[in-house]
Amino acid sequence: MPLTLTSLGCASALPARDTYFTAHVLNIRGRLFLLDCGEGTQLRLRQLGISTGSIDHVFITHLHGDHVFGLLGMLSTMHLLNRKQPLYIHAPGGLEKMIAFYFDFLGERKPSFDIFHETVQTDEFLPVLETDTADVYAFPLNHSIPAYGYLFRERPVRKSYPRSVAYCTDTAPRPEIPSWIKGVDLLFHEATFLEQDTVAAAKYLHSTARQAAQTALDAGAGQLLLGHFSSRYKETPAFLAEARDIFPNTELSTEGRTFSVPRRFIQAAAE
Amino acid sequence: MPLTLTSLGCASALPARDTYFTAHVLNIRGRLFLLDCGEGTQLRLRQLGISTGSIDHVFITHLHGDHVFGLLGMLSTMHLLNRKQPLYIHAPGGLEKMIAFYFDFLGERKPSFDIFHETVQTDEFLPVLETDTADVYAFPLNHSIPAYGYLFRERPVRKSYPRSVAYCTDTAPRPEIPSWIKGVDLLFHEATFLEQDTVAAAKYLHSTARQAAQTALDAGAGQLLLGHFSSRYKETPAFLAEARDIFPNTELSTEGRTFSVPRRFIQAAAE
Repeated sequence: MPLTLTSLGCASALPARDTYFTAHVLNIRGRLFLLDCGEGTQLRLRQLGISTGSIDHVFITHLHGDHVFGLLGMLSTMHLLNRKQPLYIHAPGGLEKMIAFYFDFLGERKPSFDIFHETVQTDEFLPVLETDTADVYAFPLNHSIPAYGYLFRERPVRKSYPRSVAYCTDTAPRPEIPSWIKGVDLLFHEATFLEQDTVAAAKYLHSTARQAAQTALDAGAGQLLLGHFSSRYKETPAFLAEARDIFPNTELSTEGRTFSVPRRFIQAAAE
Repeated sequence: MPLTLTSLGCASALPARDTYFTAHVLNIRGRLFLLDCGEGTQLRLRQLGISTGSIDHVFITHLHGDHVFGLLGMLSTMHLLNRKQPLYIHAPGGLEKMIAFYFDFLGERKPSFDIFHETVQTDEFLPVLETDTADVYAFPLNHSIPAYGYLFRERPVRKSYPRSVAYCTDTAPRPEIPSWIKGVDLLFHEATFLEQDTVAAAKYLHSTARQAAQTALDAGAGQLLLGHFSSRYKETPAFLAEARDIFPNTELSTEGRTFSVPRRFIQAAAE
């Protein structure tokens, strides 16, 4: 059964030509989780043939527009498609204002489905959701407003090790993060800047590709995916080179790419 | 000097694969007007190389999400780019709630520019803006919520006739429209449905391609552009065939296409 992470976009606050805002779809054995929802997310889902009807849980890292402005359109489309099952949006406090605006915007029309805002607020590693295929944990990042990373740990399957995926954006390095996501199989980590702009990264509380790679190394991650690239850089290969210097198994999480975490059997691991 | 209308998208409420929501950029002798601003508008502008800094006036036809949800992201980007000149958003009443939400969302941050909401409300043909290159008029459409069409009439230039462009979406046929836009050079008109679905068009207060063509014919328009196609149709050529049967000079206003209105000199016209 698959465990995959699909990139819907890799831009940061300012969109770049042909690049959407950072958002991902995590598929854990057929259950889909949407990670962030910037403007255009529903358009990208449609282009990739991913039905919004398959998404029950949305995880929002923080309330900057490039991570949430796509919610309004996606909720509208779900309503027009006559969705019936509830949608759970896990997000920092403040998102209720957006949902209230959406309801106000609808006026006399009522959404065809229930929307639940599950407020995420924590100073440490905290379980936030249990599903039949995964347990989800939140942990604080280091950004200009409250921002949370998420760890998805697969529910154990007979004779195989549970796999895990972590999602960290937007954030400057924070020393506790590697221990919170220790041994993660797949780590998505923002790399808004290159090392040459470390000062800007610190000022705006973002990471460089090198810093993201250091976090992956310290966490003992299996693979690192980089995204959320600043539009100031015309080319992205430099991010890859900079990170691979520290953490070789790094890839760029560019539009439409899907990364898979293979199932590891206990027997195979013990050989 | 050019007068062009560029399509940013031609989808209706539900996005289709590779199709953005209906929005257009009107260029009247170098002054740009944005007509509607659904989700993804700023991404499409960027892809087409059109700077948001060139846009001073936005005209919103009505407050359905597929025509306005892109405003939040575009305002954010303008702020991040440190825009200084004011932005005027001409829209039906209710848009102030979206602007209020945007300001609330920004929190302590203040936008780098002033945003003015110019409320459009009229039961008849009404002048709403005068600029150095064009006069703009609004007129009521026939939709499920207050919706307005816009007529842009070029300011007279020496020795040439003023050119004009009309923008009509979303609307069912309304008998006064042809007289309000009489002799318009370029008419964008919604065609959400085909004639085979006339009942659905009437129910949801939209137009068929045939009805749009009849409006163009009655108005004595120069050229008709169709858009806002329902996602229920997989192919769009049928819209063209149906409309051309009544109004031959019809084109589909599909993503990225630009339509030009040639300058007509008085001497040439008098020959």
